Amino acid sequence: MALVVQKYGGSSVADADGIKRVAQRIVGTRKAGHSVVVVVSAMGDTTDELRDLADQVSPAPPGRELDMLLTAGERISMALLAMAIANLGLEGRSFTGSQAGVITDSAHGRARIIDITPGRIQAALEDGAIPIVAGFQGVSQTTKDITTLGRGASDTTAVALAAALGADYCEIYTDVDGVFTADPRLVPGARQLPRISYEEMLEMAACGAKVLMLRCVEYARRYKIPIHVRSSFSNSEGTWVTDAVAAEGEAMEQAIISGIAQDTKEAKITIVGVPDKVGEAARIFRVIADSGINIDMIVQNISAAATGRTDISFTLPRDDGHHAMAKLRRLQEEVGFDSLLYDDRIGKVSLVGAGMRSHPGVSATFFGALAEAGVNIEMISTSEIRISVVVDQNDVPLAVTAAHDAFDLGDGGETAVVYGGTGR
Amino acid sequence: MALVVQKYGGSSVADADGIKRVAQRIVGTRKAGHSVVVVVSAMGDTTDELRDLADQVSPAPPGRELDMLLTAGERISMALLAMAIANLGLEGRSFTGSQAGVITDSAHGRARIIDITPGRIQAALEDGAIPIVAGFQGVSQTTKDITTLGRGASDTTAVALAAALGADYCEIYTDVDGVFTADPRLVPGARQLPRISYEEMLEMAACGAKVLMLRCVEYARRYKIPIHVRSSFSNSEGTWVTDAVAAEGEAMEQAIISGIAQDTKEAKITIVGVPDKVGEAARIFRVIADSGINIDMIVQNISAAATGRTDISFTLPRDDGHHAMAKLRRLQEEVGFDSLLYDDRIGKVSLVGAGMRSHPGVSATFFGALAEAGVNIEMISTSEIRISVVVDQNDVPLAVTAAHDAFDLGDGGETAVVYGGTGR
Repeated sequence: MALVVQKYGGSSVADADGIKRVAQRIVGTRKAGHSVVVVVSAMGDTTDELRDLADQVSPAPPGRELDMLLTAGERISMALLAMAIANLGLEGRSFTGSQAGVITDSAHGRARIIDITPGRIQAALEDGAIPIVAGFQGVSQTTKDITTLGRGASDTTAVALAAALGADYCEIYTDVDGVFTADPRLVPGARQLPRISYEEMLEMAACGAKVLMLRCVEYARRYKIPIHVRSSFSNSEGTWVTDAVAAEGEAMEQAIISGIAQDTKEAKITIVGVPDKVGEAARIFRVIADSGINIDMIVQNISAAATGRTDISFTLPRDDGHHAMAKLRRLQEEVGFDSLLYDDRIGKVSLVGAGMRSHPGVSATFFGALAEAGVNIEMISTSEIRISVVVDQNDVPLAVTAAHDAFDLGDGGETAVVYGGTGR
Repeated sequence: MALVVQKYGGSSVADADGIKRVAQRIVGTRKAGHSVVVVVSAMGDTTDELRDLADQVSPAPPGRELDMLLTAGERISMALLAMAIANLGLEGRSFTGSQAGVITDSAHGRARIIDITPGRIQAALEDGAIPIVAGFQGVSQTTKDITTLGRGASDTTAVALAAALGADYCEIYTDVDGVFTADPRLVPGARQLPRISYEEMLEMAACGAKVLMLRCVEYARRYKIPIHVRSSFSNSEGTWVTDAVAAEGEAMEQAIISGIAQDTKEAKITIVGVPDKVGEAARIFRVIADSGINIDMIVQNISAAATGRTDISFTLPRDDGHHAMAKLRRLQEEVGFDSLLYDDRIGKVSLVGAGMRSHPGVSATFFGALAEAGVNIEMISTSEIRISVVVDQNDVPLAVTAAHDAFDLGDGGETAVVYGGTGR
């Protein structure tokens, strides 16, 4: 008799048949005795099609109007899903983000949730109806304008709603079976994981695993909402993302490596010959940050004392590459660096595992495997439970497979605990 | 320096080019020094496509959810139009019916406007922005659910908003040039009218002229909002719908006939052998009314005193025909009538003109013209400024042309004042 929030992605409701199949699953959950709140994305490619229409009328559509446009997508899918549920004899009641009480700031296209006031959702549950909430959208607290939370943010809507409603858990339905030790398209022997911790999932998501959005996992960890990532095309169990301590009756011994993530959508910028003075790096990265660009890895080589100059490299989303280069070029004279290098043929491979905290030698094994596979490492960055390397983009499949083998993560392995995830 | 409400129909914003053309026109109005509020319909066939999707998931979608679905249509067109205006250097600010303060009752699919509280529209005007309001939609006063006002009701939204804002006039942009003396597709010599009274336009709309919706004209008459019906594909003057007395400097003498309307979407039901007792007709029509069916003409022949029985015929929208027949069949035993006849091959031709009040012989001329053309009259119904006849559907073009000629309404005529209108 749990209260469950179920989130269905665009691929699960891509057409009328998909919507009817999802309706069956929701009604099945209710018939099993649970209360259900549904969060739904726009159908299939609707969001892309709407964005294309926007491009046709304006080269730079205002954010407020783009959000008004894009939110039409969930409006369509949620109403259709409510109809399909009605056709199965239960009441589906659809709610826009605004009606569901998803209150955000005013940053159109990338709004943050400030609060959720789900009075109408609770009233619908009390009436015995199944609330269907539009993912991805909310309403600005100050301007009362419609906002969107950014691409793929329906997961975040679902987890935030689960937290606000005090739900027992949140099911994220997608088109893959769960979280794998590596991307199964790259590593055929990759294993599906029964469970992964928030902490590890956060590192995986930050390192390019697309199965769950970073923000959604952050939200789930903060409010301790267990997430069940599973396929809407099968009935098999997926992967549970939970607190590490919450796993009952499982081996206390943490496996060394949870899984391997890759990201091939970044570019690398190197600033050559930066004067080795206090505050220069801060000045450079302030310019990038003020442009709203998120920087990922930053590496600064040891200062060459002889010349008084140093090189700084960083990675960033490839889509922001040219914009960042233009900003930096304007800074060249002021800062007095020598030159800029731009490389968009890179890939990042990351090893994630809470067990590496207490197991020495993980990086040695990782780098050794890459060397044996003939993969050259361009950059290295580490956190307490993650090691990331930047390599040539063409070497990414080789690097992932080599690491997967070296840590014995596949079906034959015994130490594997976590990851993978394919695109959604 | 007028305040103008401009309404653009689906055919005017059918694609990106249409939206850009409409944006040009709106910006042009602003540059001419006027304040503009825009009401827009869904793009082209969007509403039909959404309805098709609904049919695919459910044979009988709940009204609340159908309204949620269909209102996505204007959301798309209004956001795109706001973007196109932004691209021309002015601010377009889109508003849903709910945001624009269109408060309705809770009758999903055919809601009535209870009130308009256009605070956000006025604020946008004060900011120098151009408010773009979704036509056809509102929000229920009691349930706060999204409602729609029924097919073609964007005209009503525009006029109601014009009244609430105290606008100087309301322009209805469509794909025809204005109101004609008859449907130009039937009568090539039909003339476009420069002006028509609310009263005459009401009769024309009620009799099948599609250029303006009945509700919209009713609203305009009640609040004395002049309507300018014109084409969004040209710059020529259209037809002004105004108070008869408001026309300045025009001939005081009212023309006899304003125009001719036809309606080929009705069916006729005849109840044969109704016992001629007090209350029987009331009982029959109560049953029909309770089904939400709008009856048009009703004709009862003089009671045949010898038999104590009478025949009652009425016309109704053809779409409701089978439903009404089923209701009446269940009533047969209780009321004790002999039989029911159903005819869906009828057409209605109506002559409208305020001048017929003071000109005797109009009906004689009308019926004479039909007889000369060999058209048989099945039913007759009249109002103070209208004469309608029901004929065989195949005879409609012949009847319209014969009447148009008989009253000399064409380009060569001198008495013509009003009508026509093609489908939108």
